[in-house]
Amino acid sequence: MKRIAKLQELLAGEGVSACLLSLGADLPYFTGYHAMPLERLTMAVVPAEGEAVLVVPELEAPRVVPRPDEFRIRPWGETEDPVEVVVDHLPERDGRVAVGDQTWAVFVLRLQAVLAQARFESATPLTRLLRMRKDDAEVKALRAAGESADRVAVRLRDIEWAGRNERDVSTQIGRMLREEGHDHVEFAIVASGPNGASPHHEPTDRVIEGGDVVVCDFGGRVDDYCSDTTRCFAVGDVDHEVARAWDVLQAAQQAAFETARPGIAAQDVDRAARRVIADAGFGKHFVHRTGHGIGTETHEHPYIVEGNKEPLDEGMAFSIEPGIYVAGRFGIRLEDIVVLTADGAERLNNSPRDLAVVR
Amino acid sequence: MKRIAKLQELLAGEGVSACLLSLGADLPYFTGYHAMPLERLTMAVVPAEGEAVLVVPELEAPRVVPRPDEFRIRPWGETEDPVEVVVDHLPERDGRVAVGDQTWAVFVLRLQAVLAQARFESATPLTRLLRMRKDDAEVKALRAAGESADRVAVRLRDIEWAGRNERDVSTQIGRMLREEGHDHVEFAIVASGPNGASPHHEPTDRVIEGGDVVVCDFGGRVDDYCSDTTRCFAVGDVDHEVARAWDVLQAAQQAAFETARPGIAAQDVDRAARRVIADAGFGKHFVHRTGHGIGTETHEHPYIVEGNKEPLDEGMAFSIEPGIYVAGRFGIRLEDIVVLTADGAERLNNSPRDLAVVR
Repeated sequence: MKRIAKLQELLAGEGVSACLLSLGADLPYFTGYHAMPLERLTMAVVPAEGEAVLVVPELEAPRVVPRPDEFRIRPWGETEDPVEVVVDHLPERDGRVAVGDQTWAVFVLRLQAVLAQARFESATPLTRLLRMRKDDAEVKALRAAGESADRVAVRLRDIEWAGRNERDVSTQIGRMLREEGHDHVEFAIVASGPNGASPHHEPTDRVIEGGDVVVCDFGGRVDDYCSDTTRCFAVGDVDHEVARAWDVLQAAQQAAFETARPGIAAQDVDRAARRVIADAGFGKHFVHRTGHGIGTETHEHPYIVEGNKEPLDEGMAFSIEPGIYVAGRFGIRLEDIVVLTADGAERLNNSPRDLAVVR
Repeated sequence: MKRIAKLQELLAGEGVSACLLSLGADLPYFTGYHAMPLERLTMAVVPAEGEAVLVVPELEAPRVVPRPDEFRIRPWGETEDPVEVVVDHLPERDGRVAVGDQTWAVFVLRLQAVLAQARFESATPLTRLLRMRKDDAEVKALRAAGESADRVAVRLRDIEWAGRNERDVSTQIGRMLREEGHDHVEFAIVASGPNGASPHHEPTDRVIEGGDVVVCDFGGRVDDYCSDTTRCFAVGDVDHEVARAWDVLQAAQQAAFETARPGIAAQDVDRAARRVIADAGFGKHFVHRTGHGIGTETHEHPYIVEGNKEPLDEGMAFSIEPGIYVAGRFGIRLEDIVVLTADGAERLNNSPRDLAVVR
């Protein structure tokens, strides 16, 4: 069954009148089309019953690959009001309307003003039911993306590090991702020495030097599916405390991996990693959740975080990425994507997990 | 006066209780900080009176450059609810709340659920009043971005075109933008032959060949201000009709440029370009508005479009970019950024405006 038809089944079952999808990964997941993140509205109107319609700016309409058996294309011209066009395609004006999470506020507020009797809610509780569980083709795509990223991780063991700045290495990682088969590069964090303590560090002009540990967290897309992996590199001799922290981190990541299987609550995977790190005395330095789902979006459901009691299920793909961050000194993180099989988890990243010593 | 203080003055004057800024260019415009486009909420709470607060994920907080005299930083931890943190910093629960246009729907809907008595509206009618009129430092930044893009436009006249695919040329344009001083590349459209008829064409594997006209529309950021320019390149001999269309296009762009000055309605600039193209018989092939404002965002107010009767004013910066698109055959577009001076407009792009003949 086509994905849009499955969504319509869910909408009808929940009594939701229509689903409106704009920016974010829902739209490409259901229609194959990526909206441009601009002020001209692109929005798919998926009613619980009947024909789905993709409302798209006229000058972007040529970018849409038609799927006439799945949705109709309705281009809107520069002097039309696209919100009115969307409203015209709703089955009713006072039903429940589910809106994609990344839709811009300006459009939600306009829709609410026009549809004063409708009840708006997030589309994610429905779309996630489909997107979270990957089918065989999706797992294959995630595996290919992971293998491509792994080839970059392996090549990074042999490049020069000392004397270059973070931005320069980040640019090289981006180039390598493309060389190894990525269509798009989404991010290439290079965080050296004390900068490693900032988990989402933006690469700077800081020059990497002997004694640094460098966190490299990178990913992108291969055929619309995402990669995301983190490895660390020690330039020359490794400080004793860092070496010990790395052993702890690797054990924590392994513990989470061994815990992950269908039926286990998402938070239990987080707890498994956190326990190992806390027991070793680094608890307060692990400042983020253990992982996030991945698919057509780098971060999606399920989130591997304390408080998420949702049972994991076969086909779910997510990151396991504990980290230890000591402000002002260093940071380390180790990240693999895994996918759940009937009785456990399979890693989709398999580059070496040691703290690589580099030049 | 600091920008946040100016915004607070506007909020107080309009009776708006607070402004909430998340993704998009408002947040960096007012705080210097770019939020990451991820599921963890970053949001500045700017009350009409009192201290502004930047609510930011704990693991991204190290990325914020503090401005303690302008706003306080409130990191939130992985098991906190950031929407509750935002609500706690509002001066009241039932006032008017202005929300940045690109804030994700999921956060707007959550805020609305918690603040059932508040009235939500777009922040843009207020923020645009500040952002639209560029001060001297901003004009200087836009000029530098324009000059950097112009150097790329000039270099493109001497590269090889025939036999290479669009994606390859697009990658080269991105590299050139960085070489010429851009910090970030936002887009590099390369649309060859019949692909040129799609104004927002995504570069493909299509191999450029003799007889093609290639539309190159590219831009990015220099010191947080945007560039955006379009030039076209003819590979070898130019078809007679294309040459004639180019002359019309250049005249249309010049007519719009000469019309643009303080006091003129935005739509009159659009009409000036459109009239020239229509008079030459290409009217139905000019399928988009004539331009958009530019600053810390590539597309912002004012929009140069039929229906926008707003008078233009000194300091406003926007694109003038008419195009002619003949489906299945070719497309052309010519784009400069201009800024309004006391008695006219100044072009911030000044690379040659001919249809360059290339190899």
